[in-house]
Amino acid sequence: MRDSADIFFAIMRAQLDYARCIDDDRLEEWPDFFADDCLYRVTSAENLRAGMEASLIFANSRGMLKDRVSALREANIYERQSYRHILGAPCLLSQKNERYRSETSFLVARILRGGATEVFATGRYLDLYGFEHGALKLFERVAVCDSSRIDTLLALPL
Amino acid sequence: MRDSADIFFAIMRAQLDYARCIDDDRLEEWPDFFADDCLYRVTSAENLRAGMEASLIFANSRGMLKDRVSALREANIYERQSYRHILGAPCLLSQKNERYRSETSFLVARILRGGATEVFATGRYLDLYGFEHGALKLFERVAVCDSSRIDTLLALPL
Amino acid sequence: MRDSADIFFAIMRAQLDYARCIDDDRLEEWPDFFADDCLYRVTSAENLRAGMEASLIFANSRGMLKDRVSALREANIYERQSYRHILGAPCLLSQKNERYRSETSFLVARILRGGATEVFATGRYLDLYGFEHGALKLFERVAVCDSSRIDTLLALPL
Repeated sequence: MRDSADIFFAIMRAQLDYARCIDDDRLEEWPDFFADDCLYRVTSAENLRAGMEASLIFANSRGMLKDRVSALREANIYERQSYRHILGAPCLLSQKNERYRSETSFLVARILRGGATEVFATGRYLDLYGFEHGALKLFERVAVCDSSRIDTLLALPL
Repeated sequence: MRDSADIFFAIMRAQLDYARCIDDDRLEEWPDFFADDCLYRVTSAENLRAGMEASLIFANSRGMLKDRVSALREANIYERQSYRHILGAPCLLSQKNERYRSETSFLVARILRGGATEVFATGRYLDLYGFEHGALKLFERVAVCDSSRIDTLLALPL
Repeated sequence: MRDSADIFFAIMRAQLDYARCIDDDRLEEWPDFFADDCLYRVTSAENLRAGMEASLIFANSRGMLKDRVSALREANIYERQSYRHILGAPCLLSQKNERYRSETSFLVARILRGGATEVFATGRYLDLYGFEHGALKLFERVAVCDSSRIDTLLALPL
């Protein structure tokens, strides 16, 4: 069992690096934050409360995340917008068998090219972290958006 | 005297749990973050500068906080809106006799049901933390809003 | 070489104190966060990508920062607006010869007197910290705004 302060710092750093990867337009590195067999979902608080499995975005392998990046690059989304993630500190909820559940609040601002900055989404990450080949990876990330009215053009990862 | 890194982590965690309690609509647990004899005020920076004691919200016991939650539940506010607190790290200002003063910047986004997300309030928490029955509790929380134009329907706790 | 957790806490605290100094309207203390010979720039992500040296604000000594504060006080900006900085945790990027590079995401809300609160700017601080006379100081701060459309009335320091 690792020390909980060490785990806190490792998870906080992983969250910061994850956010910088997206905000810096280094999307090709994004899948590397996940384990090979992973779950990535974007959903809304209302869906989660209702127990609905519907997701705005769903992937259950790192390969699917890579496919998503390729599609985003073809759509050339980054020409038109960028993101800025502002994250709260991670809240460690439980640990079991070297797997760590945490919850982290987020606010994502969207900056339109030559235009306004707006609050794009708020919510929380429900994460399951663990080590794979000695590196801390996301085994699960469920991004729960507070609003159900997420931009249907939702494109960049949260 | 406890170690200051330990205190920092304990306060940071208490702040995160406090925010999650509200954002998750578990208002009934909210008074438990306070000591029995406590002070909870919401005011504005302008009022504070002017030395005015006027508060938008005022309570000086945990019982009053519980009454407030009951009133909020009757008003059924949560049907119409939710909050997302984004907190800076706590800044420890002083400690004396096992009481700890800290200041923490906050931004609270309000999510209207089926509608827009907006910046509801920004400001800072001026807190006095201490231990009661072995648990870290708020002996004082003054939430100082930056704007004087706070929604008169202000309802959910900050 | 100092311990990296100590450095993390020292930098995080310096960032919080820097932000509070501005948000609390104690601008006269702001230059003291910098070393005597320092670099302070505000620029945009687009400018940085293009390799352009153009800055919205530029200063290369603490004296220039003091001059800027004097100018701001004459312009009496604080009568009309205030800021609230919400900072992510600092991300330590490298350390060499007791100098520490870090990157920190920021969101700055602007509160107009008697008026609305809006997202004024988002971006990241690219910082170089070091010790001068035993105190942690900024040797460089480049504030990179995500949007190129920064208010031409940009006045308060970021």
